[in-house]
Amino acid sequence: MSTDIVIETTRGNAVESRHLAHVAVCDGAGTAVLLGGEVERPVFPRSAVKVFQAIPLIEKGAADALGLDVADLSLACASHSGEPGHVERAAAVLAKAGLGETHLECGCHWPFEQRVALTLARAGEEPNQLHNNCSGKHAGFLCTAVHQGEDPRGYVAAAHPVQRRVRDVLADLTRTRPGDDQPAGIDGCSIPTYAAPLRSFAEGFARLASGQRVDGGRAAAGQRLMAACMAEPWLMAGTRRACVSLMEAAPGRVFAKTGAEGVFCGAVPELGLGFALKIDDGATRAAEATVAAVLARIWRPHDAALAERYDALSRTTLRNWEGTAVGEIRATGL
Amino acid sequence: MSTDIVIETTRGNAVESRHLAHVAVCDGAGTAVLLGGEVERPVFPRSAVKVFQAIPLIEKGAADALGLDVADLSLACASHSGEPGHVERAAAVLAKAGLGETHLECGCHWPFEQRVALTLARAGEEPNQLHNNCSGKHAGFLCTAVHQGEDPRGYVAAAHPVQRRVRDVLADLTRTRPGDDQPAGIDGCSIPTYAAPLRSFAEGFARLASGQRVDGGRAAAGQRLMAACMAEPWLMAGTRRACVSLMEAAPGRVFAKTGAEGVFCGAVPELGLGFALKIDDGATRAAEATVAAVLARIWRPHDAALAERYDALSRTTLRNWEGTAVGEIRATGL
Repeated sequence: MSTDIVIETTRGNAVESRHLAHVAVCDGAGTAVLLGGEVERPVFPRSAVKVFQAIPLIEKGAADALGLDVADLSLACASHSGEPGHVERAAAVLAKAGLGETHLECGCHWPFEQRVALTLARAGEEPNQLHNNCSGKHAGFLCTAVHQGEDPRGYVAAAHPVQRRVRDVLADLTRTRPGDDQPAGIDGCSIPTYAAPLRSFAEGFARLASGQRVDGGRAAAGQRLMAACMAEPWLMAGTRRACVSLMEAAPGRVFAKTGAEGVFCGAVPELGLGFALKIDDGATRAAEATVAAVLARIWRPHDAALAERYDALSRTTLRNWEGTAVGEIRATGL
Repeated sequence: MSTDIVIETTRGNAVESRHLAHVAVCDGAGTAVLLGGEVERPVFPRSAVKVFQAIPLIEKGAADALGLDVADLSLACASHSGEPGHVERAAAVLAKAGLGETHLECGCHWPFEQRVALTLARAGEEPNQLHNNCSGKHAGFLCTAVHQGEDPRGYVAAAHPVQRRVRDVLADLTRTRPGDDQPAGIDGCSIPTYAAPLRSFAEGFARLASGQRVDGGRAAAGQRLMAACMAEPWLMAGTRRACVSLMEAAPGRVFAKTGAEGVFCGAVPELGLGFALKIDDGATRAAEATVAAVLARIWRPHDAALAERYDALSRTTLRNWEGTAVGEIRATGL
């Protein structure tokens, strides 16, 4: 193993805090292009595999039958900020399936972005389930269930056909038996989340990006979803979110999706690469620095200017309440 | 070195994320009672040493001359939540010195506690400098400056007498030369923050708690401030804050103060002990679990029931948006 990948936050002339990263980048043949840290340890991918979870929506024909457009598909893969545009579109997708907010089983939370939450509070409003960052994914789940003629109630349970289809896709793309030979848990939005070795998620995204070692229809579904996210990155995340900056830096050439507890997954379609990373302690700030540094490393031999852009995204100046620069976040070992 | 102190967050049947802790507990003679991790590495103590920073307010006679009461002294050591009771008292302390909000140089931020921020937004208000979690400490700085007949403007600068006095106290209690033989930076509220080996902060609090190896007047000042915080813990923190739970679990017997980037410092006066801890990655959730586990360990030989109480505080059930238990935070290796 090479040098540890450590994300440092500095203050003045010293390192104040340190995060350890695990990183895997693979090609379609399953060959490792870059490995750092513990890549065989099971990791909960959380929202970073929402593309995997949305594949049945395409494969079963629900997306086309219900007329979901590119923006709807991006929202189906989203951890969105609960801004008005996200909320309205989630409601519109549900309406296409003849359903509404009350059919969601993801729960309510205030938007994570403080600015969005404060705007909602200022208007005297409270969040409903449409504001949940996962409401687009859940709307997609419900579309598939309705299209399949299934009772949508309880669609978050592991035994419901919706979640069984998701698990089958995950099993196929990671070559694991989710929940059987790997740890399982419940996600923030109440659906099952299945762990797998970090490397297997990178391989899964590489399968989709390259079309290698995977069913052609499945690869096409994954590519269609990633293309939708790259075309409409704001719907997949929100204003000033890292996923948007990462995808807008190389339009149509980089797919990157965050997950809770310091996870990022994604793909570089034209290079046929998939990547997955996990910050050992779960910190988002470190995951965001690491994914940019990984993309800089991936692009360096192919496009120096693009590599520079990602290198710049990997470093963040930290400012105090008066706006004074007091330190930075930077990834080392990549 | 013994086992690593690791704070685990679990999901389902697996560990999802891990935090590494550094811990030092010392007695008044400077003898280590408990050491874990890297205790000689310089750490920015941030707000965990606000008691040290408030000592000049007592020593110079400003607190008594201006009639600051126990609640005011707790607020002078606070990282408060910006609730109405904090804001009003900060304004009242400033008024005792003939000053107001505009004399503060700590900057503005929305209260960190979401509930408090949303309440403010709902009322159509914006935070001012009194809402800054450090406004009580800054009010104390200004009281001392006014009492000393100093121009209060620029009191946050390292060269201002206010900050020079703070640095002298820090040098004395940690036996370092802050900013000379140790790293220095700027804190969130614009004042200098000086790093020192983690162990030296534990020793500093042990000096104050025990009265050993420190000037008697300085120990008395430190004890008076810690007693004020223990008597009025809400003013030092806020509603549902960890510092409050930790101090209310053993009224008058435990002083515990959080600092940004995963720091906690404190003392157990009746045992003459001081403690300091730093989470390597800066996570608050891990610092809160660790300090409770350290207090459980400290009390175990002396008071089993109290140790149980801290042991319970060291474990937190994690719930998703629907309220389902999905995992826990727990400290291991202590």
